[in-house]
Amino acid sequence: MATTFDIQLPHYPRGFHLITRDIVSCLPELPENGLLMVFIKHTSAALTINENADPSVREDFESFFNRLVPDGAPYFTHTLEGDDDMSAHIKASLIGASVTIPIKNGRLNLGTWQGIYLCEFRDGGDYRKLSVTLL
Amino acid sequence: MATTFDIQLPHYPRGFHLITRDIVSCLPELPENGLLMVFIKHTSAALTINENADPSVREDFESFFNRLVPDGAPYFTHTLEGDDDMSAHIKASLIGASVTIPIKNGRLNLGTWQGIYLCEFRDGGDYRKLSVTLL
Amino acid sequence: MATTFDIQLPHYPRGFHLITRDIVSCLPELPENGLLMVFIKHTSAALTINENADPSVREDFESFFNRLVPDGAPYFTHTLEGDDDMSAHIKASLIGASVTIPIKNGRLNLGTWQGIYLCEFRDGGDYRKLSVTLL
Repeated sequence: MATTFDIQLPHYPRGFHLITRDIVSCLPELPENGLLMVFIKHTSAALTINENADPSVREDFESFFNRLVPDGAPYFTHTLEGDDDMSAHIKASLIGASVTIPIKNGRLNLGTWQGIYLCEFRDGGDYRKLSVTLL
Repeated sequence: MATTFDIQLPHYPRGFHLITRDIVSCLPELPENGLLMVFIKHTSAALTINENADPSVREDFESFFNRLVPDGAPYFTHTLEGDDDMSAHIKASLIGASVTIPIKNGRLNLGTWQGIYLCEFRDGGDYRKLSVTLL
Repeated sequence: MATTFDIQLPHYPRGFHLITRDIVSCLPELPENGLLMVFIKHTSAALTINENADPSVREDFESFFNRLVPDGAPYFTHTLEGDDDMSAHIKASLIGASVTIPIKNGRLNLGTWQGIYLCEFRDGGDYRKLSVTLL
């Protein structure tokens, strides 16, 4: 039996943010074995799993992705919503809209150094909505 | 209980294409809660979720990815199948072979602006086969 | 009912490696229909699905990703663990921590040319642990 529910994150500014606690604090009792799928209902932000300890990792992510996909690249044609819009869409698909995490012995089976990141690509980011599924 | 079946897409040329309707039109009645996983059975095309409204977004995706992974880069050694082959393989892994979408209250729980994209990276793309799983 | 278990891969050097057999050899009898989710419990390696035949594809992946995310980029601030650490974290999120594969008629429903890759981004890579979930 699947359980699905939506949650809304607090506001996070543009950048990469560790949100493991935001998610775990919303979870009901986990099944003994299964999986957790977290899905972001937006196309200018993304979710990924990465290092959960040193904030400099998340700052370097922001630096790298801003270089990889420059805001307002001169060949972009989708420009009506601002310089950070088309770059945000592209980054969203490079990273992905969901993360899937195994559940083992009633716990998230993450590695020691793994956490869940919100990747906020807009300057004026929204309150982002996530859909959480437990199976 | 899982349901799995294969579908074949109509021919799409190289580029990024909105295929939400192609997929939804093949779905049986959805479970009350669960997830839909769509998987592409090829290594030179990909699936992603992004903006479902303005075609210029999908054109800018094509421009960006052609710059990011140039066809026939001089250092590629896998060249027998044409200039667009190795670049297609790399793009396929940057984007990914599957999308997973939550099902809530018997409906796909997508955000308002989200749609499913086929990312066709070959000039002479095949009729692409997808495997659809409902859980 | 879900089944979840961990496996440890043999040592693989930096690069892209076909590990379909390492995984399939650990699987119990598969359900008639469902899915296999394989998750890597590390933040400097990744999993993807790509071409399973010609080793030159995997060599070109390594060349491309080393150019895309250079070791020791001058603007990285997370530098304590060596030049290949921050680049590995970024590559891990570009590719992703998991692959999800449909199961149909008791078999993995992969395309003919698809295999599972371990993407090892560290020079001194660990024995990598995977978490396998069957649903």
